[in-house]
Amino acid sequence: MLDGTATPSLVAGHQLFDSGEVRHFPGGPVRRGEANRMHTPTLSLRRAAPVTGEPARLRLTLMRIVRFTTGEDPAYGVLEEDGGVIAEIVGDPLYQGVTFTGRRVPADAVRLLAPVIPRSKVIGIGRNYADHAKEMGNDIPTSPLVFLVPNTAVVGPDDPVIIPSITQEVSYEGELAVVIGRIAKSVPKERANEVIFGYTCANDVTARDLQRGDGQWARAKGMDTFCPLGPAIATDLDVSDLRLVTRVDGEVKQDGTTADLIFDIPTLIAYLTQAFTLLPGDVILTGTPAGVGTVDQGSRVEVEIDGIGILANPFLRRD
Amino acid sequence: MLDGTATPSLVAGHQLFDSGEVRHFPGGPVRRGEANRMHTPTLSLRRAAPVTGEPARLRLTLMRIVRFTTGEDPAYGVLEEDGGVIAEIVGDPLYQGVTFTGRRVPADAVRLLAPVIPRSKVIGIGRNYADHAKEMGNDIPTSPLVFLVPNTAVVGPDDPVIIPSITQEVSYEGELAVVIGRIAKSVPKERANEVIFGYTCANDVTARDLQRGDGQWARAKGMDTFCPLGPAIATDLDVSDLRLVTRVDGEVKQDGTTADLIFDIPTLIAYLTQAFTLLPGDVILTGTPAGVGTVDQGSRVEVEIDGIGILANPFLRRD
Repeated sequence: MLDGTATPSLVAGHQLFDSGEVRHFPGGPVRRGEANRMHTPTLSLRRAAPVTGEPARLRLTLMRIVRFTTGEDPAYGVLEEDGGVIAEIVGDPLYQGVTFTGRRVPADAVRLLAPVIPRSKVIGIGRNYADHAKEMGNDIPTSPLVFLVPNTAVVGPDDPVIIPSITQEVSYEGELAVVIGRIAKSVPKERANEVIFGYTCANDVTARDLQRGDGQWARAKGMDTFCPLGPAIATDLDVSDLRLVTRVDGEVKQDGTTADLIFDIPTLIAYLTQAFTLLPGDVILTGTPAGVGTVDQGSRVEVEIDGIGILANPFLRRD
Repeated sequence: MLDGTATPSLVAGHQLFDSGEVRHFPGGPVRRGEANRMHTPTLSLRRAAPVTGEPARLRLTLMRIVRFTTGEDPAYGVLEEDGGVIAEIVGDPLYQGVTFTGRRVPADAVRLLAPVIPRSKVIGIGRNYADHAKEMGNDIPTSPLVFLVPNTAVVGPDDPVIIPSITQEVSYEGELAVVIGRIAKSVPKERANEVIFGYTCANDVTARDLQRGDGQWARAKGMDTFCPLGPAIATDLDVSDLRLVTRVDGEVKQDGTTADLIFDIPTLIAYLTQAFTLLPGDVILTGTPAGVGTVDQGSRVEVEIDGIGILANPFLRRD
């Protein structure tokens, strides 16, 4: 169990997998009320769902959670069936589960925001589709290729990706992103699903020239605005064979399926949690299929994944 | 100016350098009160200091800020002259400056914690001392070698560094760490000092076998407990020629000076803020001098920097 006496006001909650030692769980100063709130098990949403009766239908009933603003403070909501209406929910579903406020707003009257802002990290996985590894002239990795992206890179749907003057070669990479729902360490593969809150679309924007020149990918993949996420977090999604399509100015550039992931999501979670504690809201970018290419000022990139929606972002140069 | 309407409840405050675009500043959900507090300029501590009269003496009067617990919620304090007493301060000095509560506690009656938990990122710089680049068989870099460490790796003074079973070769790296005090983007070198809150000691613990095998250094340098910070943040420190000594079980292994940094701190801040927005509490590890080496279960590593103090951590294997 997490030893709450270690750094009491920093502890971020309920640890699913016990690694035995006293650990600090950083993630920014959390005040008393918030810490208490975070002790609420974070997967109440799933727990509340009936586990018997019509399981097939339950799987198909996707709950798509969005974060939005109507000009005031951001709020969270659930997209209703056809996506036209958002039912607002109380607080942050990552920590409080899903309780409706009763307010319903038309989806076209709000601005969608990144559905999650990681408190700690975005973890990227490189070369996780064989056809993409091949198109880049790389071997298929024998273990997951792990890199980090800071939370300052995260933007939301329709936010511009700003290409800074230090790069001349920027590429899109459409990806399935996993949103973590619980503090997790040393998670066995067969229990990985228990720490997943849901899934969203990501564009793992990459400055190829910096990636080649720097060796380490921190700048190439971690620059401000280089990690669009959204439009929604789909919970209870079967991700074993999801179609992933990336379009640039309407033209299909990537058309893959998550069935082709070299390391599947449970394998990634088991591998990553040997090294890192994952916190609620942390995001794993699972890799991109073949078809990457350069974009520049004025390009509009859409990443579409079945059951989640379309993440669209314009690319702009600042200078 | 920061457009507070973009994602109002996420905005983390006062942006010193205006990059012109509407940006989101992530870093975990910040509620109204906190957001307001964070709009307070974060360098009030320096601003309050007289800028005329005895400037040399002012430089020598180091204020060393610690974070500590006496079994309750963590608090911040200032170490009094001889380091024996901590004068408690109100709230977090990164956001609220230094106001004393009036409570004074003996330093040996508290447990020191990491003096800062980054909200967003620790940025590491590789091979920033020529003699270390050489001992590792590497060329001297022509631009800063940038990598990222997640906030989940941060621990404090005397906390154990846990060596997981996935590495057999762990090295210490004593380093000077810079703690950022303001939201900063595109900072010119000559104004870099304005965004620095202070300095602390770091041990950039590295799994050499994973570093060689993985290519990307995310796991090698970013694993849980691999980034000890402390014991204090020294403000207004002249870092142009600070002695940095690392001892393993009492034996001196590294004995360098920050005068030998290949890229000095203003250069690093200018370089990094071309790519990344730095948030208050973000940390830059400036690199390690020659003398790195392997440690294991039972080793005790001390990193000592003049004017800051000694950061000591035991190394333990979990298995």
